[in-house]
Amino acid sequence: MVGISSDAGRISSVKRAMEGYGIDVLVCRNPENVLFLSGYWPLTGWSLVVVPLDGDPALIIPRSELDYARESWIKNMYTYEAESLEHIWNPYRFIAGILEGLDLPKGIRVGCELSMETVATGSIAGEVSYACTPTFDLLRDIFKAVLVDATPLISKLRMVKSNHEIERIKIASKIASIAIEKLLGIVRDGLKESELAALAESIVYSEGVGFEGKVKRARGFAFVMSGGSTSRAWYPFNISSDRRIMRGDPILLEFNVCADGYWVDVTRTWILGRPTKEQEDIFYILMEAQESVYKYENPGVKACDVDRVARKVIGVRGYDRFFPHRLGHGVGLRLHEEPIIHPLSSIIIEKGMIHTVEPGIYTDRYGLRLEDVVLVLGKGVENLFPGYKFLSLGE
Amino acid sequence: MVGISSDAGRISSVKRAMEGYGIDVLVCRNPENVLFLSGYWPLTGWSLVVVPLDGDPALIIPRSELDYARESWIKNMYTYEAESLEHIWNPYRFIAGILEGLDLPKGIRVGCELSMETVATGSIAGEVSYACTPTFDLLRDIFKAVLVDATPLISKLRMVKSNHEIERIKIASKIASIAIEKLLGIVRDGLKESELAALAESIVYSEGVGFEGKVKRARGFAFVMSGGSTSRAWYPFNISSDRRIMRGDPILLEFNVCADGYWVDVTRTWILGRPTKEQEDIFYILMEAQESVYKYENPGVKACDVDRVARKVIGVRGYDRFFPHRLGHGVGLRLHEEPIIHPLSSIIIEKGMIHTVEPGIYTDRYGLRLEDVVLVLGKGVENLFPGYKFLSLGE
Repeated sequence: MVGISSDAGRISSVKRAMEGYGIDVLVCRNPENVLFLSGYWPLTGWSLVVVPLDGDPALIIPRSELDYARESWIKNMYTYEAESLEHIWNPYRFIAGILEGLDLPKGIRVGCELSMETVATGSIAGEVSYACTPTFDLLRDIFKAVLVDATPLISKLRMVKSNHEIERIKIASKIASIAIEKLLGIVRDGLKESELAALAESIVYSEGVGFEGKVKRARGFAFVMSGGSTSRAWYPFNISSDRRIMRGDPILLEFNVCADGYWVDVTRTWILGRPTKEQEDIFYILMEAQESVYKYENPGVKACDVDRVARKVIGVRGYDRFFPHRLGHGVGLRLHEEPIIHPLSSIIIEKGMIHTVEPGIYTDRYGLRLEDVVLVLGKGVENLFPGYKFLSLGE
Repeated sequence: MVGISSDAGRISSVKRAMEGYGIDVLVCRNPENVLFLSGYWPLTGWSLVVVPLDGDPALIIPRSELDYARESWIKNMYTYEAESLEHIWNPYRFIAGILEGLDLPKGIRVGCELSMETVATGSIAGEVSYACTPTFDLLRDIFKAVLVDATPLISKLRMVKSNHEIERIKIASKIASIAIEKLLGIVRDGLKESELAALAESIVYSEGVGFEGKVKRARGFAFVMSGGSTSRAWYPFNISSDRRIMRGDPILLEFNVCADGYWVDVTRTWILGRPTKEQEDIFYILMEAQESVYKYENPGVKACDVDRVARKVIGVRGYDRFFPHRLGHGVGLRLHEEPIIHPLSSIIIEKGMIHTVEPGIYTDRYGLRLEDVVLVLGKGVENLFPGYKFLSLGE
């Protein structure tokens, strides 16, 4: 694994934010926040990052994850073994012992993930561990602490991506782009939605692991809706059925790709065969809506205005009531994060933000959506999915 | 979707347990517990099941999941829309409003998932939502409640599977078995670990969705270790690298399969080509260790004795120090749940429990593991992965 930058300056910006929130020690456990604070993406969700306002940060990790944690810019590392043949699984007593040994002051204000109720899956994907009452109680006891919800602090910091994060998120977008391009040659009638989705995921796993010598763990989550069900693609999202794709079908691919804990979220819509005039119109309206954003968006504009610009393009063509959802959301350390690009979002766009731009038009017969991911630059934005968008496939 | 039984009797057994724990109203939100209590597997993790000791249970769900929630045996259903163009995402106020409207008594003891710090991923897989402080605070406020940790109650009830659950878990094991059988013909030298794992997952998605007309959502999580890295397969588990499999390699496939929220966990180990005498010996010791369990295990025995029986087989061959982990764990509504089959586990085995049996021997050059899933019957156990285990492939 080579050629990857680090983010060692992260800790000092976190400390500045802690001062603002009156937090003496920050302790995070949710995998995406451990990644954010340490550069190491936990496997199981039983790793903690401890950031004291005065002093060096520390990592507390299961010994089995040591090889992964070595990638961190935090070098002060404590390992524990939650289970052995001599004791049944109990991480808490070991974590407590290590926290005690850190010799931090008591009677302090400890920031933790009190109100974080959504978490990105870890790399074992099937299950994920997170901080809840036992962890909070343990922190309260050990530090004789008042707990402070650090979720807003973390969310706010996470909104603006560092160069390191941008580099890593671009790797995920490259993997996703390669998979989409391969799919273009694979889509055909007779394929089941679930088959096409499985192929997309399979390409990410096969080619993403080891990608350019920079990625250890990669995984795609793909969902395909086709035919009439695309008209509901904004509603019960992320579903693939066993329906077989037919010629003339709209095909909507919702594609979430994760490389070492960094995420992108992209949607492509194709017509298998010749599109109708209406489908063509809608497709180009969506493209135009996206383009209008790429022209408009800059640091300093409001997120609600970014939404408005795209919505206006759709509205003047008479389709506004068929675009019932927000324009986008932040993405990077999780699939959905701040900033939300919504008609009522008061967030000011900043350089380094990364978010989706996903206008959709859903008639009662079918729906089309296009979703790119943009990075806000010092001036303008960069589209992380710049590839030409095809409407018609298999013609 | 046809031919699936229901579990409408679940609520009365839950109510009996609630009496034992002094819980007046049980409110669960974590997807696997919503599935357990209602038979409906949420997509996003923003659905709640409310079970009052006196009165009918209710489901509170995002409107977008209505089609899925209709599968529930709970017919008392309240929907909400967490976001629209007129309001930014905020599920709490809607959930609070619905809870208020349920007209339940105040000053009561409300059971909730206070200490559940691991959760199975939902069907969108990339992220999952769960109950944490905001939900707990909301319950405390609305019901002027004392909160009681219902996690032990739920874990205990979940340990013993209903006929409905057994039927569903067997569907997952069937899908996993079909995928494993297909892989037998695919494994060859030159394949990357990540490619083989991707193929396994791909089969589950392609063929699992719609399987026998009974499955809506299916997903596999597969991990392949090969060659020398198998010697550490018990340690940083669930990893695939981009290493290419070579002839003579041991190949270890760790395979987690989920069908509509019901899980199995299975491991197969193969040698590509001709195994050494030592590898053959170890493989048959592992088989014998498993068989010894299948002969011994019955309702009424202790989990620690189930572990001991297998460990003894391995010990008499001199390999005990190469088997450093517990024999197994419960599986069904999550990948890892109770009962833990560990040398120190005091749990008494009961009819209806489902757990893995996964002896492994890890030398310093390679490791082999075999993992089946057994269902405890009135007498003896049923292996959900009864297929013949191959050691040598591609000869």
